[in-house]
Amino acid sequence: MMKKEYPLLDSIRCLEDYKRIPEDRLGQLADELRAKMIETVAENGGHLASSLGAVEIVMALHRVFNSPEDRLVFDVGHQAYAHKLLTGRGAEFSTLRKKDGIAGFPRRGESVHDAFDVGHASTSISAALGYARAKHIAGEKGTAVAVIGDGALTGGLALEAMNDAGQAKVPLIVVLNDNDMSIAPNVGAMRKQLTDMRTSSSYVHFKRAVARALDTGSFGRWLTRHMEGVKVRIKNFLLPNLLFEQLGFTYIGPVDGHDRAELERVLRRARDLNGAVLIHVITKKGKGYRFAEENPEKFHGVSPFIEESGKLKSKGGPSDSGVFGETLCALAESDPKVVAVTAAMPSGTGLRNFQKCYPERCFDVGIAEEHALTMAAGMAAGGLKPVVALYSSFLQRGFDELYHDICLQDLPVVIGVDRAGLVGNDGTTHQGILDVAMLLMMPNILLFSPATVCELREMLKLALSCGHPVAVRYPRGCLPDRKSSVPVTLGKWEVLKPIAKVTVLATGSMVEVAEKALEGPEFENTGLVNARFIRPYDTEMLKELSHTATSVITVEDGVCAFGDLVAGRLDGVHVVRLAVPSDRAIAHATVREQRVECGLSEEDIRRAVREAQ
Amino acid sequence: MMKKEYPLLDSIRCLEDYKRIPEDRLGQLADELRAKMIETVAENGGHLASSLGAVEIVMALHRVFNSPEDRLVFDVGHQAYAHKLLTGRGAEFSTLRKKDGIAGFPRRGESVHDAFDVGHASTSISAALGYARAKHIAGEKGTAVAVIGDGALTGGLALEAMNDAGQAKVPLIVVLNDNDMSIAPNVGAMRKQLTDMRTSSSYVHFKRAVARALDTGSFGRWLTRHMEGVKVRIKNFLLPNLLFEQLGFTYIGPVDGHDRAELERVLRRARDLNGAVLIHVITKKGKGYRFAEENPEKFHGVSPFIEESGKLKSKGGPSDSGVFGETLCALAESDPKVVAVTAAMPSGTGLRNFQKCYPERCFDVGIAEEHALTMAAGMAAGGLKPVVALYSSFLQRGFDELYHDICLQDLPVVIGVDRAGLVGNDGTTHQGILDVAMLLMMPNILLFSPATVCELREMLKLALSCGHPVAVRYPRGCLPDRKSSVPVTLGKWEVLKPIAKVTVLATGSMVEVAEKALEGPEFENTGLVNARFIRPYDTEMLKELSHTATSVITVEDGVCAFGDLVAGRLDGVHVVRLAVPSDRAIAHATVREQRVECGLSEEDIRRAVREAQ
Repeated sequence: MMKKEYPLLDSIRCLEDYKRIPEDRLGQLADELRAKMIETVAENGGHLASSLGAVEIVMALHRVFNSPEDRLVFDVGHQAYAHKLLTGRGAEFSTLRKKDGIAGFPRRGESVHDAFDVGHASTSISAALGYARAKHIAGEKGTAVAVIGDGALTGGLALEAMNDAGQAKVPLIVVLNDNDMSIAPNVGAMRKQLTDMRTSSSYVHFKRAVARALDTGSFGRWLTRHMEGVKVRIKNFLLPNLLFEQLGFTYIGPVDGHDRAELERVLRRARDLNGAVLIHVITKKGKGYRFAEENPEKFHGVSPFIEESGKLKSKGGPSDSGVFGETLCALAESDPKVVAVTAAMPSGTGLRNFQKCYPERCFDVGIAEEHALTMAAGMAAGGLKPVVALYSSFLQRGFDELYHDICLQDLPVVIGVDRAGLVGNDGTTHQGILDVAMLLMMPNILLFSPATVCELREMLKLALSCGHPVAVRYPRGCLPDRKSSVPVTLGKWEVLKPIAKVTVLATGSMVEVAEKALEGPEFENTGLVNARFIRPYDTEMLKELSHTATSVITVEDGVCAFGDLVAGRLDGVHVVRLAVPSDRAIAHATVREQRVECGLSEEDIRRAVREAQ
Repeated sequence: MMKKEYPLLDSIRCLEDYKRIPEDRLGQLADELRAKMIETVAENGGHLASSLGAVEIVMALHRVFNSPEDRLVFDVGHQAYAHKLLTGRGAEFSTLRKKDGIAGFPRRGESVHDAFDVGHASTSISAALGYARAKHIAGEKGTAVAVIGDGALTGGLALEAMNDAGQAKVPLIVVLNDNDMSIAPNVGAMRKQLTDMRTSSSYVHFKRAVARALDTGSFGRWLTRHMEGVKVRIKNFLLPNLLFEQLGFTYIGPVDGHDRAELERVLRRARDLNGAVLIHVITKKGKGYRFAEENPEKFHGVSPFIEESGKLKSKGGPSDSGVFGETLCALAESDPKVVAVTAAMPSGTGLRNFQKCYPERCFDVGIAEEHALTMAAGMAAGGLKPVVALYSSFLQRGFDELYHDICLQDLPVVIGVDRAGLVGNDGTTHQGILDVAMLLMMPNILLFSPATVCELREMLKLALSCGHPVAVRYPRGCLPDRKSSVPVTLGKWEVLKPIAKVTVLATGSMVEVAEKALEGPEFENTGLVNARFIRPYDTEMLKELSHTATSVITVEDGVCAFGDLVAGRLDGVHVVRLAVPSDRAIAHATVREQRVECGLSEEDIRRAVREAQ
């Protein structure tokens, strides 16, 4: 394949270089940006479709605003590749998502132009409002801008922020990147007209005209009167009204998100309005790469692919998410009370097939983890057997709902904790390393940690029959398919190598690592236990350990929690706890590299065994 | 004082008894319900004003609906006293909030009519929707009803739920208890007319008329066209539109919340609509008790008072919240970068005075803990020194924002963790027992745990100068005012009794308990350390302990976390961990009683010392 050339992009060493590029070359630059992203993500994997769709938004933002004096906060960060390329990171962009390379998400440590670290959805409006208020209080110049997708706007955090921002009386621009491709053509005709109308100086007159119009007829009069009075914010949210305007935002849009020049005009007007403004921008997800345009879901977060064909380089084999989804389908067939709940991730969590087979029993609530959990609690209280599938990292969003609504009430909700443990290239914000520690402080909930695909299947089945809340945690990718000699029984661990003076207790995906570590004659006399159940744990086996072992080494792919649990119950036994450190962030790299960084590699386990002997 | 008589109320042994009371006696019953609440709360303390305001709502609900076939979910539960009295708990109501007595909030374990355990805000719509979907899938009769206040509706969880419920195609009634007393009289004239119009059979015709009206004029045409197309939910949220209707709810209101007969009519119509309905009910907080009507904030959650005068029985002395607020005022005076953030609790968290002195630097974001934290992160990134004051129990809502937005980015946000530890009569849902365990799994954040008022002051000052996120936790009520011989220095503990073979390490409010426990000659040779700082902890003192002590007893008023931290760093020393159990809920009682229940009383500490010797 010919090496691609990026003459304009290569000339950009810093943001100022970009700003000097003449307007008539910007079309070419947009092409180069897209080509660079496609080439890099084809090689490294990454979040392609959203970033392709946001090229012109980013280009326009950086021509109108003056980062870092102006602050651009990208929600989630899936749309930020062009931003990275324009702010001096083109040369290293080929290291995207690799160890010590460019992160897949904005990172303040990486560039002064990354205003806020992101990864989880719906944070940008809050963060930008914080910046805006800081500027206001310090009397500093500059505008804060949040760029948020239509999906992330359904998150409670973003809605809370809108409610606060509209009355904050500080300049704040929310760019709504609406990449819903089905934006109906029937609004298209009005688009330009409305845009001009609402952003021009005649806008205020227009608003007054609307008010006058509403003042005729009893309904109109009632509506107008309702706009007065105190507690206006909440009233206007509740009453039929001009929502955004009444929330205190000036609404501009819809705007064609691939017309850079128009975007710049609108952004300038928005800036000059000097208040809370929402710009509704329509973009095409995957724009400029045929395969991504045709299948934006596949190219949302994608593993390495062949650029010419759009085909994935490695055929994804079975995944834990897939096993989870299949098993759930089978269980749903025999039990009509089984229902599934997802927070905008039916594909990622393996529920697509369930959704097809049982559309009436599958609930996608949008990016709303909190609601997913409390709604499931209500379902369980009403007699159903809800299974909520969430990534470990996003389960953090629902901490209180899990505790307050599910665990304290002991309601039989099953949580499929997907992407538990170290997750690799998505890095810091996506690590699934807190779930065990979180769950162990909550009452009533059981915690299963399968080490094989077979255990995952059995445990999901078991979970649905427990009558208590249960979390089943499984890693990204795929657990090994090994058969076990010992059937899965609640609270019983599996002895893989007989308990000895030095014994390793591993759980979940770390069992396979420990097995490999302890191969060979040197470790013939080292015990190895698959701690399948974290709660309830195996009291009998702990008793045996306290009699037989002098040293126990616990291995878990999260912050130390299972290790503390074991240590607290093994008096007189020396317990070495191998776990993910909780005092620093674990950045993007391969899972294998992250294990080395965390002291969780095969070699680390061997070293711990040697030292304990 | 004459004993009050409650002839009607006393005749109600179960919900059926209530339903048999003839309509012409219901006014008297309402009076009795209010009198009973006032008498009980005057004696026991409790959430009075909201419950007084919701008497007619509850009475109407139980006449129209048939609990438990129909499911009534009360948000927060502050309005549920009448519900408890009408569902057979009148005889025990005098035990309200006392150990083994009636809980201050709905509890499923207490009555089949309590549909969902609550305490934290904004859960009811999610829970009711879960019930509604369960009924739909099981083909069961009955309606799910959520009763929610206007404050709780600003919580992200409730907004997420609204977004889902409107398109769920299952019957669901949301009763919005709007106790904003300033509901403008100017809408009053339209009220009845609108109510009738919108709930009568002519409603559909009316809607069509509105649509026709909108179809005249270009703006109207544009608006109408916008209602079509896909992804209607999010579009309608974003575009100026008839919000509630377009969210899929039928809006009914406003309705006079003290006109029981009208409420019943409206509720019947809502039930018969058989879809998603929002009823906007206007109530007066504190209704029927003059002092509560005049000062609803004071009587929201109130300690025992004299009924005749409305005066509190015990003059509240200084509180930790007060000390926190005063100190913050003083610090704000010398540093213009200090700002305060509260989630709808300026009084509870002691910020009223700060709000008065620095209105431009005090941000009340509503019931929105998540936004409070992420917004503060943005402020800190922008150069301010934000201090967020939250109850420990409500900090749980912001777990992910604290981790993802503050700690991972190492942003210098100070969190005032109020009501940390056991909280007494509010019980299960309000215990502040998870914060230490939560924070210790997050990177970068420091954790201070003052044992005296003086330390609280010094530590808040220190927190603002650290340049890292810091949590300062302090209990409900007031820490002792003892002076310390050792100044507060980052990471250094205070030796209260010389380190010895058996040494007690206590933190926060447990230091005073441990001091009292170890008085007298029997414990002359027991060491006692005030572990003021949980992170950073005192490494030198731990070293000394590992040389000198054979047994260390840790004492903390939360689930075991400080104890695990110490145990993991004291190899070869026997560590006994006294902490709140994490395997069950700690219900309402006095703090002293809860300490006994948790094994954290003076006697428990003495016993642990004796056993260790």
